[in-house]
Amino acid sequence: MKVICNKDKLCDAVTNVSRAVSSKSTILALEGILLQAKGDSLSLTGYDLELGITTTIDAKVESEGEIILSARLLSDMIRRMPYEVIEISSDEKLLTQIVSGAAEYTILGLDPQEFPELPTVSGEPLLEMEAGALKSMIDQTLFAVAVSDAKPVHKGSLFDIKESVLTVVSVDGYRLALRREPVKVGEDVSFVVPGKTLSEVSKLLGDPEKQISLTISKKHIIFHIEGYFVISRLLEGEFLDYKAAIPADQTTEILISTRAFIDSIERISLLISDKLRSPLKVSFLDEVIKSSCSTTIGKAHDEIACKKTGDDVDMGFNSKYLLDALRACSSDEVLLQVNGPLSPMKVVPKESDGFLFLVLPVRLKSE
Amino acid sequence: MKVICNKDKLCDAVTNVSRAVSSKSTILALEGILLQAKGDSLSLTGYDLELGITTTIDAKVESEGEIILSARLLSDMIRRMPYEVIEISSDEKLLTQIVSGAAEYTILGLDPQEFPELPTVSGEPLLEMEAGALKSMIDQTLFAVAVSDAKPVHKGSLFDIKESVLTVVSVDGYRLALRREPVKVGEDVSFVVPGKTLSEVSKLLGDPEKQISLTISKKHIIFHIEGYFVISRLLEGEFLDYKAAIPADQTTEILISTRAFIDSIERISLLISDKLRSPLKVSFLDEVIKSSCSTTIGKAHDEIACKKTGDDVDMGFNSKYLLDALRACSSDEVLLQVNGPLSPMKVVPKESDGFLFLVLPVRLKSE
Repeated sequence: MKVICNKDKLCDAVTNVSRAVSSKSTILALEGILLQAKGDSLSLTGYDLELGITTTIDAKVESEGEIILSARLLSDMIRRMPYEVIEISSDEKLLTQIVSGAAEYTILGLDPQEFPELPTVSGEPLLEMEAGALKSMIDQTLFAVAVSDAKPVHKGSLFDIKESVLTVVSVDGYRLALRREPVKVGEDVSFVVPGKTLSEVSKLLGDPEKQISLTISKKHIIFHIEGYFVISRLLEGEFLDYKAAIPADQTTEILISTRAFIDSIERISLLISDKLRSPLKVSFLDEVIKSSCSTTIGKAHDEIACKKTGDDVDMGFNSKYLLDALRACSSDEVLLQVNGPLSPMKVVPKESDGFLFLVLPVRLKSE
Repeated sequence: MKVICNKDKLCDAVTNVSRAVSSKSTILALEGILLQAKGDSLSLTGYDLELGITTTIDAKVESEGEIILSARLLSDMIRRMPYEVIEISSDEKLLTQIVSGAAEYTILGLDPQEFPELPTVSGEPLLEMEAGALKSMIDQTLFAVAVSDAKPVHKGSLFDIKESVLTVVSVDGYRLALRREPVKVGEDVSFVVPGKTLSEVSKLLGDPEKQISLTISKKHIIFHIEGYFVISRLLEGEFLDYKAAIPADQTTEILISTRAFIDSIERISLLISDKLRSPLKVSFLDEVIKSSCSTTIGKAHDEIACKKTGDDVDMGFNSKYLLDALRACSSDEVLLQVNGPLSPMKVVPKESDGFLFLVLPVRLKSE
């Protein structure tokens, strides 16, 4: 193989494809990037058996061929090259030279036969949407994806398409995050994408106005994002019936400034740590929210203004879960809807039904 | 004690004084800041038995008194306070309230009697200089301070004042760093300041044009920097005779672009790691410096232009030490002066004698 290409384009491609490369694996080929020189282009592929990312850049191919090179090393070498033109050549003994001006590296590559084959997904895209819309849907729900293996399907987000509306839902047993956007899709379909895949997809989503597309097969999904193909397996299993989990009505509704409530809870949470767990006590009164907590370090108390309709309520929360939900809100003001001290609290925008977060309360010890 | 003060001033004071607070100590008082309210001001002191920092801010003192509060907690609490006015009050049971608007913390302080007494240094300042000059002298020499305990006095930098010139020297057995600046001091004196102290002093040095002063006693030094007093013990022992360690002449002199040489060495050093140690081979030829190295990962080679006078030389270096010296150079071009392959290399500015770095070579295996 012998190929000449542009440094910046190669650098971007290596950085982005590396997101699907194992940082540590018993199979050495999974720590590498597969380079394939053919026609007038160079393809790069990273694949850790769960997530694959592949892209193609323009190149002057002097001799076609393939090689696997360490992703970390390749990225470091190319970034430090002195000129805009980079030449990569490898011989039949896998000895590879990477040259730019007077700078020259000689390293040993791996046999391209050792690279695992990526699954294929063919057919028409299921849907096209703007990169910015998908990114906000992922970013606002990813935090609630389950970390534990208790129910593997909850380690991903549900993509539920019904009547031309895409709903993305994550749930981990303590909270639920939901985002809705209208899409142009004829059929109703639902599938679950692993959280790790969505995290990498979000990082690849650059220009918010660019159109990206999703194609699915029975077991896999491909995101096509500005020249990159991201392929991932889908998660199997029965996802929570999220519609049934969301309380239909509420006895109390509170309108607050999102930022002011976040600041107030952060202030109180100072006294809470992994070692010093204590629930946050929140009292929703007519014109004020009083928050407090008490740990062995001391006591904290704070108040912020609010507009409340309905009954007064005292509730207990895990401060981290409450903060995660509030930080994911994309509006300056939000509505908190509660149905008594032990029912989940809904966090929704003042108008529209674009997002919904559900936070389970913690039972407070009677004082 | 009851005191009311400005949030931003208190925040700055706590942050800066915290630099002298132990992050973990068996003596709880050393993890705290001593607050002393008296007259119309609040003094704050941090002291870890080696380094002490103290400052005073304007405050409305409603009741004089003292208390020790956890530095970490105090810093977190004040930073998150909602208003510009902060009130701190403590009672005889050491119960302390920190209040700003509706936000209120109640924590237990420590008995001020438990705080260790700071050493006193009296007398006239030894010297005054601009903050920027002291900062550059510290920053350009600190990297060569010894880490190992082999010779404790080398864990600090020598401040050597002779004939109205201040020379700061650090040395760790593998390299030496030296900076010179003219100062207005009548007497000749020399002392060694711990590296840790200098590192914290450098962080406190803000506005480069502000005048700062140094006062010394037999065992201690005080830096007076814009309202902060930094007190530190001095190191005892015999510091290396640095003048004797610097080679007087050279057989080869090379003029290079500092940035180009740094880039070239960084490129080659990619293949070197803590696990894969290998010397960097550098050949100084007439118009070119060829650098290379070889480890189990592979081989790297690079060339940059230079202007050389004298003999050709092949030398081996520890790439980290060479990089540290070059990165500390404050001029675009530097002179490398060598006296054969096994003698230390001098790195000096093209004109002036403001800095001098000495890097010991590594013996290369004959190939």
